[in-house]
Amino acid sequence: MTVIAQDAPVATPIPGVAHATWAGHDDGLQQLSVWRQSVAASAATPPHRHDIDEVVLCLSGRGELHINGQVHAFHAGETLVLPRESMHQIHNSGDEPLEIVGVFGGTPVGTWLPDGSVLPLPWRT
Amino acid sequence: MTVIAQDAPVATPIPGVAHATWAGHDDGLQQLSVWRQSVAASAATPPHRHDIDEVVLCLSGRGELHINGQVHAFHAGETLVLPRESMHQIHNSGDEPLEIVGVFGGTPVGTWLPDGSVLPLPWRT
Repeated sequence: MTVIAQDAPVATPIPGVAHATWAGHDDGLQQLSVWRQSVAASAATPPHRHDIDEVVLCLSGRGELHINGQVHAFHAGETLVLPRESMHQIHNSGDEPLEIVGVFGGTPVGTWLPDGSVLPLPWRT
Repeated sequence: MTVIAQDAPVATPIPGVAHATWAGHDDGLQQLSVWRQSVAASAATPPHRHDIDEVVLCLSGRGELHINGQVHAFHAGETLVLPRESMHQIHNSGDEPLEIVGVFGGTPVGTWLPDGSVLPLPWRT
């Protein structure tokens, strides 16, 4: 498909994390994935890393990025730069849903937990 | 920088096309560039192609994507999938500015015109 509707995120098995894949390998791409996610108030992604570069666009809400042992506050209108292999975790630190777009410089997107095991993702990547 | 403000697009030498680079090689990325652009009413990008996959998120407005000899109408809330080497041109077909985010599966972003010559871009890619 050349023109694709931007689906709203839907609930996933990861508590508080809703997801929609907006573009990826199944759309004819080889170097790019685009995810849309909503993180509920007080929720967070698991700590994890990817083998490819990621950029997160914060659309609304506010959060904390935990990355490589550091903590960075962020909010709507800011962009997070997550070079590949950076261990990171995104927390919603506000009272409203944290609405983000995650962009990856590859597809599919490999994801690993801190103990080195693969995090099987419940969506197409 | 890990957290970067999302700058508003500013006018460029390309008529009707304003641009801001939100993330790319200078931010420590090797596989990803993110651009924010605004295309004025009745304006268009030049026809061009890249050597890397691109996805365009339409934030507001409406446009026409001319790609490989086909024309696709699109509007806010839709995503364009532009596999690498696709010759394409984006027109604003509405009365309001066409606001888009362009995401690339590589950095820097090589850009070529239909005659095979390089299009030198007046921004960091």
